[in-house]
Amino acid sequence: MSGNTIGKLFTVTTFGESHGAALGCIIDGCPPGLELSEADMQRDLDRRKPGTSRHTTQRREADEVRILSGVFEGKTTGTPIGLLIENTDQRSKDYSKIAEQFRPAHADYTYMHKYGFRDYRGGGRSSARETAMRVAAGAVARKFLEQRLGITIRGYLSQLGPIKVEKLDWDQVHQNPFFCPDPDKVAEMEAYMDALRKEGDSIGARINVVADGVPPGWGEPVFDRFDADLAHALMSINAVKGVEVGAGFDSVEQKGTEHRDEMTPDGFLSNNAGGVLGGITSGQPIAASIALKPTSSLRLPGRGIDVHGNPVEVITTGRHDPCVGIRATPIAEAMMAIVLMDHYLRHRGQNADVSVTTPVLGQL
Amino acid sequence: MSGNTIGKLFTVTTFGESHGAALGCIIDGCPPGLELSEADMQRDLDRRKPGTSRHTTQRREADEVRILSGVFEGKTTGTPIGLLIENTDQRSKDYSKIAEQFRPAHADYTYMHKYGFRDYRGGGRSSARETAMRVAAGAVARKFLEQRLGITIRGYLSQLGPIKVEKLDWDQVHQNPFFCPDPDKVAEMEAYMDALRKEGDSIGARINVVADGVPPGWGEPVFDRFDADLAHALMSINAVKGVEVGAGFDSVEQKGTEHRDEMTPDGFLSNNAGGVLGGITSGQPIAASIALKPTSSLRLPGRGIDVHGNPVEVITTGRHDPCVGIRATPIAEAMMAIVLMDHYLRHRGQNADVSVTTPVLGQL
Amino acid sequence: MSGNTIGKLFTVTTFGESHGAALGCIIDGCPPGLELSEADMQRDLDRRKPGTSRHTTQRREADEVRILSGVFEGKTTGTPIGLLIENTDQRSKDYSKIAEQFRPAHADYTYMHKYGFRDYRGGGRSSARETAMRVAAGAVARKFLEQRLGITIRGYLSQLGPIKVEKLDWDQVHQNPFFCPDPDKVAEMEAYMDALRKEGDSIGARINVVADGVPPGWGEPVFDRFDADLAHALMSINAVKGVEVGAGFDSVEQKGTEHRDEMTPDGFLSNNAGGVLGGITSGQPIAASIALKPTSSLRLPGRGIDVHGNPVEVITTGRHDPCVGIRATPIAEAMMAIVLMDHYLRHRGQNADVSVTTPVLGQL
Amino acid sequence: MSGNTIGKLFTVTTFGESHGAALGCIIDGCPPGLELSEADMQRDLDRRKPGTSRHTTQRREADEVRILSGVFEGKTTGTPIGLLIENTDQRSKDYSKIAEQFRPAHADYTYMHKYGFRDYRGGGRSSARETAMRVAAGAVARKFLEQRLGITIRGYLSQLGPIKVEKLDWDQVHQNPFFCPDPDKVAEMEAYMDALRKEGDSIGARINVVADGVPPGWGEPVFDRFDADLAHALMSINAVKGVEVGAGFDSVEQKGTEHRDEMTPDGFLSNNAGGVLGGITSGQPIAASIALKPTSSLRLPGRGIDVHGNPVEVITTGRHDPCVGIRATPIAEAMMAIVLMDHYLRHRGQNADVSVTTPVLGQL
Repeated sequence: MSGNTIGKLFTVTTFGESHGAALGCIIDGCPPGLELSEADMQRDLDRRKPGTSRHTTQRREADEVRILSGVFEGKTTGTPIGLLIENTDQRSKDYSKIAEQFRPAHADYTYMHKYGFRDYRGGGRSSARETAMRVAAGAVARKFLEQRLGITIRGYLSQLGPIKVEKLDWDQVHQNPFFCPDPDKVAEMEAYMDALRKEGDSIGARINVVADGVPPGWGEPVFDRFDADLAHALMSINAVKGVEVGAGFDSVEQKGTEHRDEMTPDGFLSNNAGGVLGGITSGQPIAASIALKPTSSLRLPGRGIDVHGNPVEVITTGRHDPCVGIRATPIAEAMMAIVLMDHYLRHRGQNADVSVTTPVLGQL
Repeated sequence: MSGNTIGKLFTVTTFGESHGAALGCIIDGCPPGLELSEADMQRDLDRRKPGTSRHTTQRREADEVRILSGVFEGKTTGTPIGLLIENTDQRSKDYSKIAEQFRPAHADYTYMHKYGFRDYRGGGRSSARETAMRVAAGAVARKFLEQRLGITIRGYLSQLGPIKVEKLDWDQVHQNPFFCPDPDKVAEMEAYMDALRKEGDSIGARINVVADGVPPGWGEPVFDRFDADLAHALMSINAVKGVEVGAGFDSVEQKGTEHRDEMTPDGFLSNNAGGVLGGITSGQPIAASIALKPTSSLRLPGRGIDVHGNPVEVITTGRHDPCVGIRATPIAEAMMAIVLMDHYLRHRGQNADVSVTTPVLGQL
Repeated sequence: MSGNTIGKLFTVTTFGESHGAALGCIIDGCPPGLELSEADMQRDLDRRKPGTSRHTTQRREADEVRILSGVFEGKTTGTPIGLLIENTDQRSKDYSKIAEQFRPAHADYTYMHKYGFRDYRGGGRSSARETAMRVAAGAVARKFLEQRLGITIRGYLSQLGPIKVEKLDWDQVHQNPFFCPDPDKVAEMEAYMDALRKEGDSIGARINVVADGVPPGWGEPVFDRFDADLAHALMSINAVKGVEVGAGFDSVEQKGTEHRDEMTPDGFLSNNAGGVLGGITSGQPIAASIALKPTSSLRLPGRGIDVHGNPVEVITTGRHDPCVGIRATPIAEAMMAIVLMDHYLRHRGQNADVSVTTPVLGQL
Repeated sequence: MSGNTIGKLFTVTTFGESHGAALGCIIDGCPPGLELSEADMQRDLDRRKPGTSRHTTQRREADEVRILSGVFEGKTTGTPIGLLIENTDQRSKDYSKIAEQFRPAHADYTYMHKYGFRDYRGGGRSSARETAMRVAAGAVARKFLEQRLGITIRGYLSQLGPIKVEKLDWDQVHQNPFFCPDPDKVAEMEAYMDALRKEGDSIGARINVVADGVPPGWGEPVFDRFDADLAHALMSINAVKGVEVGAGFDSVEQKGTEHRDEMTPDGFLSNNAGGVLGGITSGQPIAASIALKPTSSLRLPGRGIDVHGNPVEVITTGRHDPCVGIRATPIAEAMMAIVLMDHYLRHRGQNADVSVTTPVLGQL
C-alpha cells in the first residue's frame, strides 16, 4: 500500500532503479490456468525497448524478462508471478557529475526533499526505465483479456510536437518507429526529429489508447470509477501531464445535445463518453488520450542549483530520448490493460451472479 | 477497498443516494486536536449548495451537516468522524417515468448492466448529490492544511462553454454565482446562461484549482505519485472528462527548453510542472485543471432505449443544473484538499525523520 | 485504510463513541439484489443488546438500526449501505470523575499516549459499544451467506471462568442468557455470576464459533489466509486475548499421525484443521475459539495513575458487564460472517471461472 | 492487495514456490537512510535455514539473499527494496508421485479446489520455504527498530510437544538447535526428537515472541489494533493454529482483580495485557505466543484421496522437518518486526505532532 503497487485484485508491484542491478515486479492476483511464457511479455518489451531507431536513446538494453514463479507447466497457477530484468548497459560514470546538482524538470530536487538522500545515477527510481516492468505486467493482463474475453488494446502516437496525425490506420502503427497511424506524417516526423536532435532540444507528444470489446458494467462508483482509476494509472507514467477520456477537454465547449451519446436499439450514435458513463463501462470502446512533456535531459545548458542552493549550469550528456512520447505507446497500452484486468476481477467479485436481461448495444 | 473510499491514511468513505434518506461519510485518519465544528464544513457546503442563483438547479436542500462522532469538546479525537446530511427536498415523483428508460449520457444503462437493478430516483448513487459529502470531508482536510501548515486551496471557473476567463482576480471569485475570477466576463456568462436555459440545452466548463504553500517532498513514487492520485480524485468527480497538471496538454507542443522550469537560488523561473516533479511536490503551487461535460439531463428530447431495448424519446423534466461546472469549484477544491491531506500523512509516516539541508526555493 | 475498516471487497467501516450522538457504519461491496430490511439486523442486535438479563450491564439501549442508503424497494442495490444507531441512554455524568484518571486494564492510558487527548466518557471509541455496528454489518453478510450459499454461522459460550461446557446442544444456546449450549451448566453459571456481582469482581470467558456449509477454496495465500484474516477479525473484538482455529493450542502436544485429518472418499475423518488447510477452506466446518479477558471496570478499588503520573485509587461506578464474554457470542458470529463474505467475493473475483473436477468431500 | 502483501505503510510482498527458480520479495515503505547490506539479513536467514542440525530437514539451501534495488551506497533510499534468493537444492523428482494425490493435512486438496490446478512440487506456494523471504524482510524492519528506536525482538521455543520450558534464559536460546531458553530441557528435547525421527512421526510446538522497548501509542483502533494485526501476521505463518497475546487463554479463568495490570507511578505491576490495551501499545513488552501443528509430511502411511476422489495410501518420502516449530522462532520474530514497523509508520503518519505530557511508565 505504499506507493509502488497498483491495482486491488490484480496488483502489480515494481522495484528497480535505472542503474541498479535489476528491475523486477510481482503480479499478484492473476487467475490460474492462463498459458504464459516469457515470449508473451517479450513482444511488448521489445516495442518499448530503447535503441531500436535513431530517434530514441542509444542505451542498449536487452530487456530480457525471466519468470521466476507463478507459472507451472506453462500455465499460471494463481499464485504471484515474479518477473526479473537484469540491467546490462548502465554506464554510471555518465552521471557522476550530477550527484551534487539538481537538473531542471527532473525529480532530483523533489527526491532530495522527500528522502534527504538519492540514487543520482540516471534518475534512480524516477527513471522511465521502471516502465519496462509495467509493460511486462501489462502483457500478462493483455493476454488474459484477449484470450478469455476478446478484448483488444491498441495505442498510437496522435501528435508529435506540432505534427498532428490525421488518419487512423491501425496497420500502419507498427510500420514506423513512432507508432504513427498516419503514413503521410511519418516523413515529416522523421525530419522533425532529425532537426531536433541536431538542435539538442526535445519535444512533447500525445498518445491515444483504445480498448475494444470491453463489456458494459466494469468500474466501481464512486471513487474507483473506471475512468478515475484509468486517469490514475496513465498519470502515473513518467512525463504525463494530462489525461482525457472520450471527448476530454473538448467537452468544455460542447452543448448537452451534442455531447450526449444517444442510444438506439442498434447501438450508440457517438462516443463522446469514451466508453464510460457514471464511472462504469458502457460497452463502447474505452478511449483515452495523454499528454507527455518533452524530455528534460538536454545537452542545451539550463539553469539549476546544487545541493547547497548555489546556481549551476546544467548540461546533460547521457543517452536520452529526445521525445519520451515515442516509446510511450506500449506503456499506455500496458496501463490500460492493468486497469481493465483489475476492474474485471473486482466486478466479477462483487457481481458475478448478476443476470441482466437488457440487451448489450452495438458499439460505435 | 471497495469503490466508495478514497485515501490511504486520510480516508473518506461516502454513502447515500440522490433521493434516499440521507447522505453520509466517515473520515478516518484525521489527526487529533484539530478544532472542528459543523460551521467549518457548512461554509463550503453552502458554496456548493443548489438553488443559490437562477443558474443552478432549483432543488432546495439545506445541506445541513451533523457531526456524529470523532469530535469531543470541540476538537477531533483522532477517531473516525461520522457526518450526516438528511435529504429534505427529494421529489421522487419527478422520476417515476424513467424507471424503465435509459437516458443518454447518464449512468442508467451502465448501472443496470453492472448491478442488474438500480435506484432510478434522480440517478440514485450516480447523482452529483453525493459530492456534498466530499465537500464536507474536504473542509476538514482544508482546515487542517490551512491552520497547521499554512496551505491555501482555491479554485475558479476558467471557462464556461466558449467564454474563457482572461483575468485571475481571486477577490472576484466569490462575487458572482459562477466562481468567475474575471469581473469583465460575468455579464457575458449571465447572458449566455439565460439564453441556454431558454433553449433547454446545457454546456460544459473548465475549472482550475490551485494549492499554495505545499512544501516539497509529498507524493509516493511510482504509482501513487501526487499527480496520479490527484488525477484519480479529480476524474472521480461526476461529469469530469479530462485532467491536466501544470502545462497539461500544452506540453505536447512545448520544447524541452521551454517546458523545463529552470531553478535559481531565488526560486523556480516558471511552473509548467504544476508543482509536481517525478510525482513529488516541488514546493511550487500545485496547479490542476479539469474539463466538465455538459449536463446530460435536458428537456430537449433525445434518443434512448428502454430496459427491453426498445427505442424511446427521453425528455428530462426534473430540476437540473444547466451547467454542472458552475457548482463544481468547491468540489474540485475538496478533492485537492483530501489528496493533499492523505499525502501529507503518508509522507510524514515514511519520512518524518528525514532532515534535508538543501534550501527550499522560493515559489513562483 | 486507516484502522476503522475491515475487509477488502466486502468492507465495513464503523464510527461512533460510547457516549457520542450515534454509532454508524458503511458496508461497501454488498452484492446487489439481496432482500434486506432493518429487521434482518435487529434480530442479531437484540441478541447482543445490553440489559436483557441481570447478568449484563443495566444500560438501556434500544439499539434500533436505520438503513440510510443502499437498499431500494427492499433490495440491496450494490451501492454502500449506510447504517445508523442513535445513542439514547448515555449518562455522561457517571464518567466525569475519570477524566483525569487512567483506569487499569483500560485503554485510557494508551489512547492518551496515542492521541494526546481523549473522549473519556465511557471509554469513548474504545468502548465495546462499537461492536453493535459489527453485529449489524455481520447480519447483512450472514443473510447473504445463508440465503445464497446455505452457510450457517453459530456461536456459543464454551467456558465461563472455571465452568466448562460439556455438551453442545445447539437448541439450548438461545434458551438462557449465556448462549450456553449445555443445559446442565446454566444453573451453575447463574449462581457463579450472582456471587461475582455481589463480590464486585468480573470474570473471563471462552466463545466458540462455527461456520457450516462453507465450500472448499476460499482464502488467499500467503498473508491473507482465511485463518489469518479470521484471527485478525476475532482479535479485533474488545477484550479478546487469544484465538484458536481447529485444534488450536492442543496441536502443540499432538503428533502428526493424530493431528492430520485423514481423507477417504466419504469425507474427512477428523477436523483438527478447523476447516482451513494452507490458509484455504477445505469444505469442513470452520471452527474457531476465542478467549475474552474479564471486564476491567470494577467497583473494587484498583491502583491507577492520573494524567500527571500521580497514583490514584480507581473505583468504577458506571453500569458494566461483569463478564463481557456473555454478550460476545453474536459479535464473534458477526466477525466470522464478515470474513467469510469478504473471502467469498475475493475468491469469486480471482477464480470465478475455475472448474474443478475433483469431488468435494463429505464434511465431518 | 491480493493475498501476498502484508502491511499498509511498510509493505512486504513475496513470491516463489518451493521448487521454482527463486523466492523473492519487495519491501515498500522502508524509510531512507538506514544502513543495510545482505549481511543484515543473512544472520536471520541462517537461523531459519534448513539442515543446520539433525533435527531439521536435510534439504541444503544456501539461502543467500541478494539486494537488487532500494539501497545505494550502503543505505536505503526510501524506494522499494527488491530481494532475491535462488533455489539451489530442489529435487523435484521426489515429488512426482504425489502429482495426483492429496496428502492429508496439506494444502493439496484446498489449492486444487481454489485454483483447479497446482504446482505439486514440494507444496509449491504453500511450502514453508516461502517464509525465508519473511525472515529477510523482517531483518530489515528489525534493524530499523533496533537502531533507531532501541526496540529488541526475541523469540524462543516454549514447548516442544509434551516438554515445557521452565526457565527463560535468553543467553541459552542460541546455544542449542531448538531455540530453547532452558538449558535443563535440551537433552530431553534431543532424545525426544531422535525417538520421533525413528518412529517416523512428527510433533507440534509452541513459540513465544517478545518485543522490548516499544513505546506507548502504536496501533490503530478499532480493526487494525496492534494485537489484531499481530494475530493476523502470526496466524499467517505456515502450521500456526493459535495465537495468544499476554495472558491469552489463561484470561478465561482470571478474575478482573487478577487480570487487570495495575499501574503505579513506578510502572505497571503485571503484564497480563501483553503490552496492548484497547489495541494500542502500552509501553510494556509486547508478548505473544503461537501454537504450531505437527508436520503433515510423514513417512508413516495415512489415508488420502487422489484427484478423482479414489482412496490412496499416502507416504511422504521427501526431506522434511519432524517439528516445523523448531525453525519457526526466527519467522515469528520477523512477523513481529514487520507488524511493529508498519504500526510505527502508521502511528507517525497520523500522530507525528501529538505531544503528550503524561509520563511513560516503567516497564515490568
